[in-house]
Amino acid sequence: MTQMNRQILLASRPEGAASVDNFRLVETPLAPLQEGQVRVRNHYLSLDPYMRGRMNESKSYAAPQPLGEVMIGGTVGEVVESRNPKYKAGDKVVAMFGWQEFGTSDGSGMQLVDTTHVPLSAYLGPVGMPGVTAWYGLNRIIAPKAGETVVVSAASGAVGSVVGQLARRAGCRAVGIAGGADKCRYVVETLGFDACVDYKAGNLYQDLKAATPDGVDGYFENVGGEVLDATLARMNAFGRIALCGMIAGYDGNPQPLKYPGLLLTQRLLVQGFIVSEHMDVWPQALKELGALVAQKQLAYRETVAEGLGNAPSAFLGMLKGQNFGKQLVKLV
Amino acid sequence: MTQMNRQILLASRPEGAASVDNFRLVETPLAPLQEGQVRVRNHYLSLDPYMRGRMNESKSYAAPQPLGEVMIGGTVGEVVESRNPKYKAGDKVVAMFGWQEFGTSDGSGMQLVDTTHVPLSAYLGPVGMPGVTAWYGLNRIIAPKAGETVVVSAASGAVGSVVGQLARRAGCRAVGIAGGADKCRYVVETLGFDACVDYKAGNLYQDLKAATPDGVDGYFENVGGEVLDATLARMNAFGRIALCGMIAGYDGNPQPLKYPGLLLTQRLLVQGFIVSEHMDVWPQALKELGALVAQKQLAYRETVAEGLGNAPSAFLGMLKGQNFGKQLVKLV
Repeated sequence: MTQMNRQILLASRPEGAASVDNFRLVETPLAPLQEGQVRVRNHYLSLDPYMRGRMNESKSYAAPQPLGEVMIGGTVGEVVESRNPKYKAGDKVVAMFGWQEFGTSDGSGMQLVDTTHVPLSAYLGPVGMPGVTAWYGLNRIIAPKAGETVVVSAASGAVGSVVGQLARRAGCRAVGIAGGADKCRYVVETLGFDACVDYKAGNLYQDLKAATPDGVDGYFENVGGEVLDATLARMNAFGRIALCGMIAGYDGNPQPLKYPGLLLTQRLLVQGFIVSEHMDVWPQALKELGALVAQKQLAYRETVAEGLGNAPSAFLGMLKGQNFGKQLVKLV
Repeated sequence: MTQMNRQILLASRPEGAASVDNFRLVETPLAPLQEGQVRVRNHYLSLDPYMRGRMNESKSYAAPQPLGEVMIGGTVGEVVESRNPKYKAGDKVVAMFGWQEFGTSDGSGMQLVDTTHVPLSAYLGPVGMPGVTAWYGLNRIIAPKAGETVVVSAASGAVGSVVGQLARRAGCRAVGIAGGADKCRYVVETLGFDACVDYKAGNLYQDLKAATPDGVDGYFENVGGEVLDATLARMNAFGRIALCGMIAGYDGNPQPLKYPGLLLTQRLLVQGFIVSEHMDVWPQALKELGALVAQKQLAYRETVAEGLGNAPSAFLGMLKGQNFGKQLVKLV
């Protein structure tokens, strides 16, 4: 009997907000492996904000996701069959197989991972793309000095949680911005940030001002919109802004920047970046992040949706901030 | 008989747009020189956009100009009396004596200049602060490579005119943005830019698109507002923006940035700067700029108001773009 592979395709491009109708679940038969090929059962699928940009036709930082093809995405899983000498059944791998249950590869685009001390799913979080994103933006753009204040938005998320913890380790005051009292409590009590501002509490600028008595030297931006406006108004001279994401504007709702003149009067540096364009730092960053997770010195949290069919709704929820920590889909 | 010094003081801070009522002309007697002092008759006063920021109370990149004191500003002039062995009558100097006819100094804050091959007024323009501003933003922030496209706003002005000419010398396509057909003709025909877009012609984005067929790699910003919005939309990936001025928003009219998301999707660098904080580059920049002016390889243009009493109206006109090239006030 031919084994079936369930996949989620991009069915249509969003007009304004994305919806579940933009996705389609299909079942396709798995072809027998050819010489040199490897088959992987995906255990976890990573859901990340950048995917929203790929759904659009328009020019973004990457080619658009083609219609009618499997949605792009990072995955971790286990080799279940191999006709490639470099892999054997039982090997754990991280790859970019996208929103599907099985991945098939000629062995390229896969990385063996060691799950002795680091859980498999962490390779999609603090020891994966989100972790390296945090590491790069903090160390290579913000480049904080001990005693400085570093602010990060979406602070309880996969990237933000790592930014603040690394900033603390660098001797900085780490201040998060997150949505809701629960997330803020987690950011301070579990992640160890010095403070966290709840942007939903309705007093963003004043609360941020109170949490940053010495102003802000480094800002790691994941959100944009009013959160960016408020933080910009707290920046000290010669501050650095690592522009990683602007999720507030992703759903067809571009948010203006109210006072760009502050970039000049405070002589700020702003640098937009995409971590996949800085592959040179990945080995060093992953080594440091893996050691911290293995030694339980880097906390992280996951929101796990069950089953491939729930990936679209989990993804849409993440765009609205309904996740709490790294959003994953568990497939096995 | 005691000699009198005419001075212009900041009388009040603007509410919204600045006006002539914010200034007051006074006559004060010149005290006899003390041992070590030098007296300079100012020949030209420099009027520059940054002065508008100093008129405000609010936090800017420098301390506010105190009320009731002589307006700050660069000057060039001639030593008329000296009790300092380092200076003698007839010496030409550049200094920051502000909006007044005479300056008195203990010898500090003055620089001797050689007017054999470079006209005195040029030390307030291409061989002075505006020239070094252009040099720094272009070479140290934009860092253009041959074949790239560099755009500069306020292209016929004291800074912009130097930016484009230096960009051409670096092998770049230089595109100006200026207000009016006369200025644009000058930018192309006299300054040698490859193209110039008239932002007053009502078709800014389309005209800029036509003038930048390969997109924009470096942008030197003096204006802000809709000019920044339009240029941002033409930026290529990994573009660099030297943020030098945002004159469109200076007069109590902050201009939002419509699509800050482009900073991320195009992975742009933005760096605000003030040239007085980069004194290390001045000697090299002035040497290069002085040689170019002396060899008539760097064109520049001046708008000269006559007499100290006309400084306020000339300054206000400059904020509205009524000057054509470097705005000076001739005092002798």
